[in-house]
Amino acid sequence: MEHAFIAWLKRRAGQSSKVTLGIGDDAAVLPSDPSDWVVTTDSLCEGSHFRVAECGPRAVGRKLAAVNLSDLASMAATPHSFFLSLCLPRSHAASYATEIAEGVLAWADRFDVALAGGDTNVWDGPLVVHLTALGLAPEGGCWTRRGARAGDVIVVSGHLGGSLAGKHLDFTPRVDLARALRARLPVHAATDISDGFGVDLLSITSASGLGAEVELDRIPISEAARAAAGQSGRSALDHALGDGEDFELLMAIPQSALGQLPSEIDGVPLTPVGRFVSRTGLWRREGGKVHQLPASGYVHGVKK
Amino acid sequence: MEHAFIAWLKRRAGQSSKVTLGIGDDAAVLPSDPSDWVVTTDSLCEGSHFRVAECGPRAVGRKLAAVNLSDLASMAATPHSFFLSLCLPRSHAASYATEIAEGVLAWADRFDVALAGGDTNVWDGPLVVHLTALGLAPEGGCWTRRGARAGDVIVVSGHLGGSLAGKHLDFTPRVDLARALRARLPVHAATDISDGFGVDLLSITSASGLGAEVELDRIPISEAARAAAGQSGRSALDHALGDGEDFELLMAIPQSALGQLPSEIDGVPLTPVGRFVSRTGLWRREGGKVHQLPASGYVHGVKK
Repeated sequence: MEHAFIAWLKRRAGQSSKVTLGIGDDAAVLPSDPSDWVVTTDSLCEGSHFRVAECGPRAVGRKLAAVNLSDLASMAATPHSFFLSLCLPRSHAASYATEIAEGVLAWADRFDVALAGGDTNVWDGPLVVHLTALGLAPEGGCWTRRGARAGDVIVVSGHLGGSLAGKHLDFTPRVDLARALRARLPVHAATDISDGFGVDLLSITSASGLGAEVELDRIPISEAARAAAGQSGRSALDHALGDGEDFELLMAIPQSALGQLPSEIDGVPLTPVGRFVSRTGLWRREGGKVHQLPASGYVHGVKK
Repeated sequence: MEHAFIAWLKRRAGQSSKVTLGIGDDAAVLPSDPSDWVVTTDSLCEGSHFRVAECGPRAVGRKLAAVNLSDLASMAATPHSFFLSLCLPRSHAASYATEIAEGVLAWADRFDVALAGGDTNVWDGPLVVHLTALGLAPEGGCWTRRGARAGDVIVVSGHLGGSLAGKHLDFTPRVDLARALRARLPVHAATDISDGFGVDLLSITSASGLGAEVELDRIPISEAARAAAGQSGRSALDHALGDGEDFELLMAIPQSALGQLPSEIDGVPLTPVGRFVSRTGLWRREGGKVHQLPASGYVHGVKK
């Protein structure tokens, strides 16, 4: 429902000269001087994105800030300010509010972000938290999902899969990594992996009017994905491709710049895992042959 | 709990050079060229701010946009863009999403605001909707709650009270009124009446380090407040002072500019209802004597 709604809303909202980049990317871009503004907003809901009784309210605040920072990182934007809005369950309103704020402020302090405003509500429902993050576009403009070209290399940061075991609550948004990459080499397109490698790769190919060929044996599989595979009966690769909430960067880097790509930055590996191709769709390359790759993750059982 | 939390958060978040005006006003102000940005964020929750089964999802969207526009109006900002984040109950996700968006877009279209981004979530809880609105500060800077001076006249727009009977879902945010006033005369401080006349007046006096004397017989009481009084056993004045969600402008206008204040603009009355005084606290003037006025509304039974 969500993708159909966003597609409808993008058409319905229409174009505006007030907006350089609107609905449908990781963040919006608003023209301004000397830098464009980059704006992203995310809500987290009890039971869908966290279980506050298990993780505690401070972890909810940390995740809330980090998911928004991850969106800014995927645009290569410099984080600027946060606006926090809380819908607090009546029974725990005061204690949750301060703990959530401390969690948000931990990341705000880390990246020199101002907590500039918000809204506080107490209600009879479960915990819902919202954050809007503003950032400043880098000189030369933001990374978006649109600019990938046929022949560009697909590069992913970190290791993928099994996020539900803990990483989804406690990850480092790739703000510093994006800044370092921005200074070193051209990046034609980028997003962060929130829905899952396959779905998010599809978002770049769709926005760029391309397809992608993935070399599955190059996918950097996390230890957590291997552990999850032991429990779920699905393959570790399947977890890596489909779990989502990795909050790693997924990028299109021109072949000619691949020599400038370090194998890691500050301990975060950077792995080429395939290339963008003019033939639309997602494909996997295996033993010299090319097969379709479902965006929802790898088809269980096709690969050993 | 909310006021104590906001006061704590304001201290905890601290000052930042990135923010001209931070936590504690109707909106935040971020320095930029050629105009500063004004940012406000509000969440509405099922059961607290609306009952979707009674009012329908489009009315929820209209209210959501209007409360944010009211915050921008109270700063004399020109609305620029909206960022919409939805937490949709699973049973009605698709139909609610489009209807809420249509409600938001009705006000966006009216004030030439771009719907520039958002986030959509489906969950097992009740409907929660969230909007962040960006605006541009007027030349010469925003109205804030801080600038009232002793001797300034308290001026209120429209009629107050009884909003729950319907106005809270369907009101005109005072964007045009604020723009017209801005062009005509100086306004030293302003807010919108969301919590109730008394509480919101107190927010100006606290921010400005002043008190206020209210002439109760000048309060513009709405027909809805009179109707509510017939049901509740409280006075119509009590409803006007304490109900809240009027979303009218409450302003401090210098005595010397009162001659430039029209009695109405486009059918919206503008009523002087007292003045700001150096003695802190809220006061009511009656028969030549001055009594304390509780911020939560008028004390039932003191006045006939």
